Amino acid sequence: MPANNPTACLLVIGNEVLSGRTRDANIQFLATGLGNLGIPLREVRIIPDVRETIVDTVNEVRRTFDYVFTTGGIGPTHDDITSECVAAAFGVPWEHHPVAWPRMEAAYKPGEFNTARQRMATMPRGATLIENDISVAPGFQLENVYVMAGVPRIMQSMFTWLAPRLQGGAKIEMRAVHVFGLPEGVLAEGLEAVQARHPDLDIGSYPFYRTGSHGVTLVAKGPDAAAADRAIAEVTELIAGFGKVPIPGEPPELSAGEGPEE
Amino acid sequence: MPANNPTACLLVIGNEVLSGRTRDANIQFLATGLGNLGIPLREVRIIPDVRETIVDTVNEVRRTFDYVFTTGGIGPTHDDITSECVAAAFGVPWEHHPVAWPRMEAAYKPGEFNTARQRMATMPRGATLIENDISVAPGFQLENVYVMAGVPRIMQSMFTWLAPRLQGGAKIEMRAVHVFGLPEGVLAEGLEAVQARHPDLDIGSYPFYRTGSHGVTLVAKGPDAAAADRAIAEVTELIAGFGKVPIPGEPPELSAGEGPEE
Repeated sequence: MPANNPTACLLVIGNEVLSGRTRDANIQFLATGLGNLGIPLREVRIIPDVRETIVDTVNEVRRTFDYVFTTGGIGPTHDDITSECVAAAFGVPWEHHPVAWPRMEAAYKPGEFNTARQRMATMPRGATLIENDISVAPGFQLENVYVMAGVPRIMQSMFTWLAPRLQGGAKIEMRAVHVFGLPEGVLAEGLEAVQARHPDLDIGSYPFYRTGSHGVTLVAKGPDAAAADRAIAEVTELIAGFGKVPIPGEPPELSAGEGPEE
Repeated sequence: MPANNPTACLLVIGNEVLSGRTRDANIQFLATGLGNLGIPLREVRIIPDVRETIVDTVNEVRRTFDYVFTTGGIGPTHDDITSECVAAAFGVPWEHHPVAWPRMEAAYKPGEFNTARQRMATMPRGATLIENDISVAPGFQLENVYVMAGVPRIMQSMFTWLAPRLQGGAKIEMRAVHVFGLPEGVLAEGLEAVQARHPDLDIGSYPFYRTGSHGVTLVAKGPDAAAADRAIAEVTELIAGFGKVPIPGEPPELSAGEGPEE
């Protein structure tokens, strides 16, 4: 992985993924979007709606990574505590936001901008807004921490607004080739040699399973597209050397995960 | 959340989820399975195939949580480094496993149990095996750390084998009711009162979006089923008080995420 690209950490805040009630729908979108900006996602943490956990985690990761993105916990209900926890993490007051408050007040009918909704216009002092096309409630940025909604389509709208405003690095290029019927354990030695020849790339090996057929996808990743192309050409040759047919790109309908084979 | 239930942390190890190449398929399965055993999942970390990161993270979380589960990185290729990192984290040798080694050696044709495959039979000293029905390569347990495959169907087979061998607590019960056309911001105050009357439950509020209709799901979670039933009855009454129709259970085809409304 390139040493000079800025790094990112994502905090998914909320009990509903940890309880298994919902399957996360935001990680892959943000991982891909950040990779395209040359801001590789280096860690994801899924944490519960617990004040101490959120405060401590925000403080740990904002010092470790260039960018921290959070999703979830900025709605109007009692379990939405991300915003006040970010204020506590930075040691700043949690107060009426000078832009968000009047805007949200104007968006509701008289009397409907109640205490619960006012929470969504209350932010850490110094926060700047992250806009979106769907909800009147914005996200916000404080230093290197970007606080976004958990509802996927609102989060996506916020990230789309945010993307051109982030300072990225060289885009992470990804090239792949796959093969059926050739076990990882046979490819491993040659693959390690390809990795050794391309120390600036990440060479990954991902077995997949289909009804009636197994295979493996080999991926080369890094900021240098030409190097990734060369590495995949070497892997392609390696596969052909075992008398199998290398197929460019990812297999259709990828099943997730990596692990032991056979 | 019950204070006397054992807690769990899941480490998803591998670059392919962080790069956005694949969408995680293991978190929800394990979150649900652990909840059913009364071992609430309290944190998930997705980390890359980087030795120092894996070692440091394993050492941090194995001291914080009762159970640590890992998925990914136990295959035969150069990027599969979970097993040796767990050995390093515990400060024990990484060596031929007395059971896994002869079993795997016997499973391959003469000459095919090569260096790469031998890695899958090499484990931290003191590890006991986690069996599965699909791959000849087992996972392993060392103290409170359970190392499993990343390929979903192998991981699921390992967890199914493991589940009756884990010491759990009271099962986490979950009850839900949902409603269309009633914003979270209207429900919030009454919902907070329900939470205040049931401090041993987690009351969660999760908006959802459909083409042409919005709604919110209210969830009560905790080890006391009767308390969860009572809390949901109170939420049902709250919804009816706004002239809307409470619908028992989760909405069909749940979309993930929580966040701001309207």
